[in-house]
Amino acid sequence: MSTGWTVSENDTLTEGSTLDPSSTKPRLTLLDTTLRDGEQRAGVALTLEDKLKIAYRLDELGIQYIEVGFPASNDRDRQLIERLALQPLKNSQMVAFGSTRHKHTLASDDPGLVALANCSAETVSIVGKAWTEHVDKVLETTQDENLQMVASSIQYLVAQGKQVFFDAEHYFDGYRNDPEYALAVLHAAEAAGAALIVLCDTNGGCLPFEIYQICQATCAVLSTEIGIHCHNDSGVGVANSLEAVRAGCRHVQGTINGYGERVGNADLLITLADLQLKMGYDIVSQEQLARLTELAHSVAAIMNIAADAHQPYSGSNAFAHKAGLHSASVVRHKPSYEHVDPALVGNFARIVISELSGRSALANKASELGVSLPDSSSELADLLQKVKTRENQGYSYEVAEASLALLLADLTGQGQKCFELESFRVITDKYRGGQALSEATIKLSVAGERVVATGEGVGPVNALDAALRLAITRFYPEVSKFELTDYKVRVLDESTGTSAVTRVLIDTSNGSRSWGTIGVSENIIEASWDALVDSLVYGLLKVGA
Amino acid sequence: MSTGWTVSENDTLTEGSTLDPSSTKPRLTLLDTTLRDGEQRAGVALTLEDKLKIAYRLDELGIQYIEVGFPASNDRDRQLIERLALQPLKNSQMVAFGSTRHKHTLASDDPGLVALANCSAETVSIVGKAWTEHVDKVLETTQDENLQMVASSIQYLVAQGKQVFFDAEHYFDGYRNDPEYALAVLHAAEAAGAALIVLCDTNGGCLPFEIYQICQATCAVLSTEIGIHCHNDSGVGVANSLEAVRAGCRHVQGTINGYGERVGNADLLITLADLQLKMGYDIVSQEQLARLTELAHSVAAIMNIAADAHQPYSGSNAFAHKAGLHSASVVRHKPSYEHVDPALVGNFARIVISELSGRSALANKASELGVSLPDSSSELADLLQKVKTRENQGYSYEVAEASLALLLADLTGQGQKCFELESFRVITDKYRGGQALSEATIKLSVAGERVVATGEGVGPVNALDAALRLAITRFYPEVSKFELTDYKVRVLDESTGTSAVTRVLIDTSNGSRSWGTIGVSENIIEASWDALVDSLVYGLLKVGA
Repeated sequence: MSTGWTVSENDTLTEGSTLDPSSTKPRLTLLDTTLRDGEQRAGVALTLEDKLKIAYRLDELGIQYIEVGFPASNDRDRQLIERLALQPLKNSQMVAFGSTRHKHTLASDDPGLVALANCSAETVSIVGKAWTEHVDKVLETTQDENLQMVASSIQYLVAQGKQVFFDAEHYFDGYRNDPEYALAVLHAAEAAGAALIVLCDTNGGCLPFEIYQICQATCAVLSTEIGIHCHNDSGVGVANSLEAVRAGCRHVQGTINGYGERVGNADLLITLADLQLKMGYDIVSQEQLARLTELAHSVAAIMNIAADAHQPYSGSNAFAHKAGLHSASVVRHKPSYEHVDPALVGNFARIVISELSGRSALANKASELGVSLPDSSSELADLLQKVKTRENQGYSYEVAEASLALLLADLTGQGQKCFELESFRVITDKYRGGQALSEATIKLSVAGERVVATGEGVGPVNALDAALRLAITRFYPEVSKFELTDYKVRVLDESTGTSAVTRVLIDTSNGSRSWGTIGVSENIIEASWDALVDSLVYGLLKVGA
Repeated sequence: MSTGWTVSENDTLTEGSTLDPSSTKPRLTLLDTTLRDGEQRAGVALTLEDKLKIAYRLDELGIQYIEVGFPASNDRDRQLIERLALQPLKNSQMVAFGSTRHKHTLASDDPGLVALANCSAETVSIVGKAWTEHVDKVLETTQDENLQMVASSIQYLVAQGKQVFFDAEHYFDGYRNDPEYALAVLHAAEAAGAALIVLCDTNGGCLPFEIYQICQATCAVLSTEIGIHCHNDSGVGVANSLEAVRAGCRHVQGTINGYGERVGNADLLITLADLQLKMGYDIVSQEQLARLTELAHSVAAIMNIAADAHQPYSGSNAFAHKAGLHSASVVRHKPSYEHVDPALVGNFARIVISELSGRSALANKASELGVSLPDSSSELADLLQKVKTRENQGYSYEVAEASLALLLADLTGQGQKCFELESFRVITDKYRGGQALSEATIKLSVAGERVVATGEGVGPVNALDAALRLAITRFYPEVSKFELTDYKVRVLDESTGTSAVTRVLIDTSNGSRSWGTIGVSENIIEASWDALVDSLVYGLLKVGA
């Protein structure tokens, strides 16, 4: 309890009967299911290489179990398991996934169970039904046959030398509907030798107090270790996981950034941070916990999902302060608006530049960006004034720090140019029935040479980007590594319609780092051009390929 | 408890001593602070018109209180309050926001309190300190003076005839640190006449069990109605709000889609749905609740934030099913993977397409827009499919009903054309040191005549608008009355940079009525053109000058 800002040592609260913050906490394990449940998110498709990258990242964070997929139904997942067996994980164990046998068959004849038995994973997880309605309407079999399916599947895998986790699907719906039968399923799994029984809120419909009550009642009558698997459909996936731990569960499942089907699973990283920083569990080392932010961002990048800037703990805005009132308070009293020290999860506080109240904040920001500012306070004041003037014109540097770095370098005589623009022209044509097409011609000087280049694109900015890259690639081949990952347009004073000032924000990435730039103009093309030029120049001068 | 799929009538659970699902629930009120806290989100800047639009949307949902902003420090918010006084909300009350007086002054001399007293809002909310550390280090005053500040500020506003809400900032940190002082602040507010006392977890650091315990202890010793205001920094903002209600709070604050500073506030719409559908509170009518999804999307559009497809309840994927296993189960047994009936919150399942509710909703919308649809259900289904196809391409008609009306008219053979485009060309030039300039040439037929017109503009869309008006004004002089009041651009799939699909939204007004149109294309110019044409055509055919 000593690491969070807001948790005082002489805390007078207790969490309830099962946990006392001052006592030694029981051991908890985590299981990440990003590679199985996470992949169910709409629009996501992972290759074998993607899955390997994610698995090794999770291993670095020290997550105890990594669910890797279905060897029975999926060739890629079968290969993944064999690749991970050849280059084993250091801290984590992989877990292969499958289901209980089909009705009225032998477990040893079930192709899915045989595939699990034969794969290289030492631990396997199988899902079975715990809700009578589901047994009846989805499996279309008897309650007794379902109990047999659970028991014989686990017995078979245990006999094959596997450690078996049993996922009780729809356990909470089942318990509400028929607690005796739901518990009978768990008792069957326990008797058959399951090492861990996981209670699943499969449709994400439960609220925290229901999870607490049902987990408590369940833990009381079983001797096997109990785990929890939540989804976020009611917006309380993390809270449900925490309440399950308070009720006696010793194993928690989730996905990185909460990726998953529908609205997603419980976010495993937020759950980890809450459990470790606020509830006093030692799950990973301090060094591992400090990789949390990096992991959240890199898994997003591998899955080709824009990282959520507003994600608790890991988001780039998670510790950013915009309001004048708050910024001043933060400087005076950090715990006011930082619930934990951001460094504990590898993040950092940002007082966003638009709220700069003074010269010292500007100097701090500049040193963060690697630009050295003059010592003289009158020169600093002059510089601050120039930045503020730009902000009044509509530049918002809080999300475009690369443009701020270039501006500060320019204003202090440290600016460098990669090329000199002579002119550009962008033409967009549309003929009846056809599609609009854009073409851009750029004239510029680079390394003493005059270059003229024309690019085509699906839109005017895409065409400008193509022409500019064509013009300078011979001189700066690194630009081919820079990819524009986000393009946003915002009209600032909307009351004047299409003649209002336009702000363009571009995010660029070289694969391992990304940076944001800004352009502001009445003309959307000019604003886009300015943001585009900053994006390439910053990449060339400050980042590299 | 009868409306959610997963909640059975003969539920054997109880929520604890304070609530019994079978008994009549106490009345709860909600306060939306999107216009104050929500605006603190990084990158958000709302105009007066944006704020008005959001306020009237919230009013339609039936949210009891809408916090509108700071009349003291902000001219736009002062105007907003006066505009809302002239065109009053139907279901909601507006709440103006401010702080307790400065130290060692008279409340009646405090400019912020005077501005609150003089504004047209009948209810005002003021924030004060409840944490000794904060009184000491941020206010830099004595604990006694802080109590005086709270008491005299409330007394002054009550004497001026206002209903006063008191926000106890950092209440939970304060209570953990020094419960006696935190409660003394609340007792001072109660004695001074506060109508409602709101407990704020200002830095979002609390977990649900802490919120429950502190709210329960607090409600036990006060007779004033108690509210809760949570942030999502620990990923449990909604759960914290629900636990506060279980502990006795009768008022809940939050923002639409959880927008707010850092990671944001507790999401008010998720909280509303959980409270009403799962905990049995009657907060808004069923019809109002069915507007939840539309509200979530339209507020996102007005704030120019991409609606989160994975948002619980309102996300376009919230009831989408991807996994083969699950999809088949959904067909056999809906409650398996739908925790509530999506129609209750105005959303729909994406695999099991609810044909009937889809068609009847479309028919209702069409009659609202003055378009008559075919009676045949197969033709209606076909029409619905065509609209859905466009939505999959990126059209979002929730905020562009004029474009939907034109589309439905076209698809049912009721469409009319005002002119026929032959071609357009837009050129944007920039020379070193100069400003970019745009010029558009349009060729079209109108009333049997071929017209060629060229317009200049500060940007390409402005130039197109100028050329189009020039070409048709002689035939349709009313267009001179139409003014474009808003132009917003959003890139829909941001992961592909400048070649992604672009969505343009335009609002147009003739002075007394306004309407919204949409264009979607890979080319921003083409998307803008489509929205522009719809804006003028709808105005000419459906509105008039």
